[in-house]
Amino acid sequence: MTKIVECVPNYSISGNPAAMEQITLPFQTTKGVHLVNVEGDTSYNRTVVTVIGEPQAVKAAMVESAKIAVECIDMRKHHGEHKRMGAIDVVPFIPIQDMTVEEAVALSEECAKELHEATDIPVFLYSLSAKREQCASLPDIRKGEFEGMAEKLKDPYWKPDFGTAVHPTAGVTAVGCRPLLIAFNIDLNTDNRKIAAAIARMVRYSGGGYRCIQAGPVTLEDKGIVQVTMNVTDFTKTSVYRAFEAVKMEAKRYDVKVIGSEFIGLVSVDCLKDIAAYYLHVASKAEVTLNLEELVAYVSEQLKLHDFDASKVIEYHVH
Amino acid sequence: MTKIVECVPNYSISGNPAAMEQITLPFQTTKGVHLVNVEGDTSYNRTVVTVIGEPQAVKAAMVESAKIAVECIDMRKHHGEHKRMGAIDVVPFIPIQDMTVEEAVALSEECAKELHEATDIPVFLYSLSAKREQCASLPDIRKGEFEGMAEKLKDPYWKPDFGTAVHPTAGVTAVGCRPLLIAFNIDLNTDNRKIAAAIARMVRYSGGGYRCIQAGPVTLEDKGIVQVTMNVTDFTKTSVYRAFEAVKMEAKRYDVKVIGSEFIGLVSVDCLKDIAAYYLHVASKAEVTLNLEELVAYVSEQLKLHDFDASKVIEYHVH
Repeated sequence: MTKIVECVPNYSISGNPAAMEQITLPFQTTKGVHLVNVEGDTSYNRTVVTVIGEPQAVKAAMVESAKIAVECIDMRKHHGEHKRMGAIDVVPFIPIQDMTVEEAVALSEECAKELHEATDIPVFLYSLSAKREQCASLPDIRKGEFEGMAEKLKDPYWKPDFGTAVHPTAGVTAVGCRPLLIAFNIDLNTDNRKIAAAIARMVRYSGGGYRCIQAGPVTLEDKGIVQVTMNVTDFTKTSVYRAFEAVKMEAKRYDVKVIGSEFIGLVSVDCLKDIAAYYLHVASKAEVTLNLEELVAYVSEQLKLHDFDASKVIEYHVH
Repeated sequence: MTKIVECVPNYSISGNPAAMEQITLPFQTTKGVHLVNVEGDTSYNRTVVTVIGEPQAVKAAMVESAKIAVECIDMRKHHGEHKRMGAIDVVPFIPIQDMTVEEAVALSEECAKELHEATDIPVFLYSLSAKREQCASLPDIRKGEFEGMAEKLKDPYWKPDFGTAVHPTAGVTAVGCRPLLIAFNIDLNTDNRKIAAAIARMVRYSGGGYRCIQAGPVTLEDKGIVQVTMNVTDFTKTSVYRAFEAVKMEAKRYDVKVIGSEFIGLVSVDCLKDIAAYYLHVASKAEVTLNLEELVAYVSEQLKLHDFDASKVIEYHVH
């Protein structure tokens, strides 16, 4: 199998198609790299780009893109609702296929070094790539935002892993390996938000639930139902079928049924195989032999998924 | 309702009924205190005493018991398989009824201070009573054991909360508030230990499972089956019905069924009401109106419990 990495850089810009075309050009022209998605949010004034491909090619294209972004974005003029500390705010690398976490961490370190050398932006290694405890959490690094970074970086505790002084127009960047985050919502046959909130509390880690589940309630006014909305922060530890089965189990207390579910954003073949393995009664995903189309159909049926097809699977975009 | 606290002191002694009679005498003679259980283990050379009752009375009896234990136990002559650092090795306080964690922490602090003043044994506040991060985990405090404590306590990092020097014959004691630990085993209709191990991995925290579940496999040679053996370290966060339902759910993958379960040691009314509330389809334990006998019968039926009766419920022993 080919090694595949996903990279999801967040740029502090939106509503500027010409600039985004420039910034994403390396992802469109570098061999072995596939541009999957570009999603801007104007109230956030932020654009999230999803790229996958061969690790070294993705890294090289990412560094090229950063060089262009530094020219296009001036943080001194940036306003937006989302917290941010730099033009290339964060660059997460996610191992997708035939790649260990250690390999993805090493790739992120190379990227951080090269990105710093090419742009003079100071870089923090964060999440699984963090070298120091205080750098594991992105919100902790980002606290103070662009405007507060010059002061913050004077403290040796907040010395970046590469570089020292804040870039005058591009701020600071965080680069790191993190697990693939699965955003997963479950529909209940009730409009009682309190029930969704109670179930969310029971399945999420903070309420004594599963280790890698974050969850909350959401009301879908148009459908007249509520959802339990979840992030599965590491499906290799807490597989998604457990999130689904746990919500079904907790819903019984309220005589409520699960009537559907949906993935928001992309999932991976491994994530789907993990789910399929449970319902197929086999011990591990290695024993799941379904092809992509079959896998999508089978998991859709088991989880009552709507709005799901092969194009929502990361690996689909490699071909 | 009356405030009830449980206290489970561990003494570094066993196989000496006369000494244990002395050491437990304050629990037998103090008004408002009930001696529930005395269980010695000769290979551990350790005796675990379970006491419940009115908080101030339990604390006073505990200090009296410690004064006697210091006279009876000489750690310089103590050998046993269980790690230990003192004659009164650890004194956990567990809030059982109408008592907050804060109140139990305050009680443990009073006990630690009075125990030190009465015996000259240095005391660490541990678990939920810990004042410093390094004191939260009992195994961390205990590392080095009795023989290594004199050296260990020279390091200011390991300064006890009360006292300074190791007691020459009684060592060091840890006192603190901790949640009630529920030991719960689930029987599977298979003798395949690998299946119990795989299920244990999926339900326990370290494998991505529930926050407050520790689990492993065990083989019951006499019955020809395996069990998933679990500690629910805080049932107020991870209720026991979730442990049961999660094991049932994971077992389906292997076409295995849950055929029974058992509690090891004591449970509390609150723990049982939490379980009953789920199966009764009510939102919380406050809505469960069953009396003790009814509660025991109902939960036994739902969890297929064996070897369980009212005498295994802590509050039963108050009357």
